[in-house]
Amino acid sequence: MARQSMREEILGSGVELFLERGFNAAAVKDITDRAGVPKGSFYNHFESKEALAAVALERYGETRPIPLLRDESRTPAERIRRHFEALGAELSEYTKGCMYGNFAAEVVDHSEPLRLRVKGGLEEWSGVLAEAIAAGQQAGEFRAELDPERTARYLTSAWEGAILRARADKSGEAFEIFFDLTFGALLT
Amino acid sequence: MARQSMREEILGSGVELFLERGFNAAAVKDITDRAGVPKGSFYNHFESKEALAAVALERYGETRPIPLLRDESRTPAERIRRHFEALGAELSEYTKGCMYGNFAAEVVDHSEPLRLRVKGGLEEWSGVLAEAIAAGQQAGEFRAELDPERTARYLTSAWEGAILRARADKSGEAFEIFFDLTFGALLT
Repeated sequence: MARQSMREEILGSGVELFLERGFNAAAVKDITDRAGVPKGSFYNHFESKEALAAVALERYGETRPIPLLRDESRTPAERIRRHFEALGAELSEYTKGCMYGNFAAEVVDHSEPLRLRVKGGLEEWSGVLAEAIAAGQQAGEFRAELDPERTARYLTSAWEGAILRARADKSGEAFEIFFDLTFGALLT
Repeated sequence: MARQSMREEILGSGVELFLERGFNAAAVKDITDRAGVPKGSFYNHFESKEALAAVALERYGETRPIPLLRDESRTPAERIRRHFEALGAELSEYTKGCMYGNFAAEVVDHSEPLRLRVKGGLEEWSGVLAEAIAAGQQAGEFRAELDPERTARYLTSAWEGAILRARADKSGEAFEIFFDLTFGALLT
């Protein structure tokens, strides 16, 4: 396997295992096994599991369905709905979490570099969501008195909590409730 | 140390470490070290870390500030606010999570007995919260059209997500936003 492709395989397996098991339960050996590479090769590409996690967070951030929030061919309410539907589609088996949420539960108290990346990822997400909420207010779709930035942060929290509930329930009901209450009560 | 008191020490340390580190990063040796007992004594009291976690979840459930939700000397809105304030007071350093949330992120996919306990704990919590929401609707404090059970589940998700955000931010702002939007937009 070429050097660059081995690094990509390790990174891809790291992302998967951090989503499925979180940080602590994803051992370097699990990651290299899933990537189909020798364990020793890990350290040719990453200094530590923490270093891999930093790159994995960046990769995860790049694959968030943020463009859906900026899709001006749709109304702001449709943009926000499609964004969360895309996030929910990633979680259809209820056996994976959000990397930000998993790391917030496990890692942020023990690694300041990873904490700052999780914080930054969440801020970027809620920032773009806030723009869509403000656009919905301008379009008359949402309540005018809501603060877009705080409402966006509330919604991202409600979503992260819904993931936890869906995993505990092994059911998508928490996501259905998220959509019902967000569009039927909070925003309108 | 008497046998019963040793079991209590191990259980208390287990609760603390599951809140601080989650399940996977809390090793049996960490738990017995914090309890000040020999590692070998653990297995006189608990068959496994999973068995301890089941009892820890039960103990955690018993210490939730559920009675505040039923305090009929207060209005339903005050009951709900005081309940979440009490939960927030447990988390003032932003270095601990909710045991339900931590386990939902890490454990529920790998242990069906623990998953069912987490699910049960969350259901009990949102069930009592739903009663307080219904009482608030009857008192004219909250929007009449909300479904109390689904609204309670939405709120518990928003709270669990706010904990994750507070830990990532090392700030209580996510809790402030939870209170503002819950009482200023969702319920009213």
